[in-house]
Amino acid sequence: MEYYAGPVARLIEEFSKLPGIGKKTAQRLAFHVLNISMEDANALSEAIVYAKEKTRYCSVCANITDVDPCNICRNESRQKNLICVVESPKDVIAMEKTREFRGFYHVLHGAISPMEGIGPESIKIKELIVRLQQNPVEEVIIATNPTIEGEATAMYISKLIKPAGIKVTRIAHGVPVGGDLEYADEVTLSKALEGRREI
Amino acid sequence: MEYYAGPVARLIEEFSKLPGIGKKTAQRLAFHVLNISMEDANALSEAIVYAKEKTRYCSVCANITDVDPCNICRNESRQKNLICVVESPKDVIAMEKTREFRGFYHVLHGAISPMEGIGPESIKIKELIVRLQQNPVEEVIIATNPTIEGEATAMYISKLIKPAGIKVTRIAHGVPVGGDLEYADEVTLSKALEGRREI
Repeated sequence: MEYYAGPVARLIEEFSKLPGIGKKTAQRLAFHVLNISMEDANALSEAIVYAKEKTRYCSVCANITDVDPCNICRNESRQKNLICVVESPKDVIAMEKTREFRGFYHVLHGAISPMEGIGPESIKIKELIVRLQQNPVEEVIIATNPTIEGEATAMYISKLIKPAGIKVTRIAHGVPVGGDLEYADEVTLSKALEGRREI
Repeated sequence: MEYYAGPVARLIEEFSKLPGIGKKTAQRLAFHVLNISMEDANALSEAIVYAKEKTRYCSVCANITDVDPCNICRNESRQKNLICVVESPKDVIAMEKTREFRGFYHVLHGAISPMEGIGPESIKIKELIVRLQQNPVEEVIIATNPTIEGEATAMYISKLIKPAGIKVTRIAHGVPVGGDLEYADEVTLSKALEGRREI
């Protein structure tokens, strides 16, 4: 970093801490910032702190929000008896973009992963159980990722809440729409076969 | 953007203004920022403003610097009679990384481009001429990019300063080291032939 002026080196260093941003991209971003107006640089700088300061977890669903309860939880027109459990706030965005799901969410903020030392108590499973005890629902859709950790989390939650008489479902695994059978891996194809439906 | 909480939407918007950062990457960066500590978010935020506030153009070579003259211009051990002309501060970094060049620099902050309305007066050519009049040098190496604009700028500068008896050189164009003749374009290959040297 000896080639750069101190403040530029520091900015490159900070940018390269971001996910997916290598040294070269960090340099490009830093020189871009040096080229934009002070006003634009301030806007970027303030947006970072503002997003951190003004957002928190919704006290109901644990999604990221600037109002509590979040806009989804306070929406009276959504289906009260349906909760979709996801791993992260990004997954809520992905589900909302389908415009198909009109129930509520519960964000776990992770998945059970003994390898990384993440047990059931590290993610928001307890909050889900309390929530279901206070506001019984008909169905819980588990939309954790189709990974080993996501599946383990789905199984764990299912075993916890099924005894309470709640219907627990898992989103379907299969060949992606627009995908090609030839390129689907064996596990996905087995899941697609297993989940076949009459047409 | 309706799916995101206000401050999150604003941060995604700001990130996606950065070069090479699309909507999806901007979302990933924003959620990363929401996950890091307030301290780390502040460090990033401050580095942006700090880099803008503390850096300016060196009054000698127009490179980006936090001290004036810049560290290169104030380095007494460099070759006083040699100036390398480049388009941008990024090019100074690239040249420095070779560890081959020990003269001084002059940063033009652009190249002549009639298509984009950038004439000779829009870039720091006048400053170069004034500098050469006050501190005569033996050789000016023109290291603008091997593009139409870079070549035009090189020709323009060459015609301006050659009459003063200064040796003007252009960096070599040719097949990149580690490259493959088969994949070199015709223009590069012609330049490589033209610039051939006895071995």
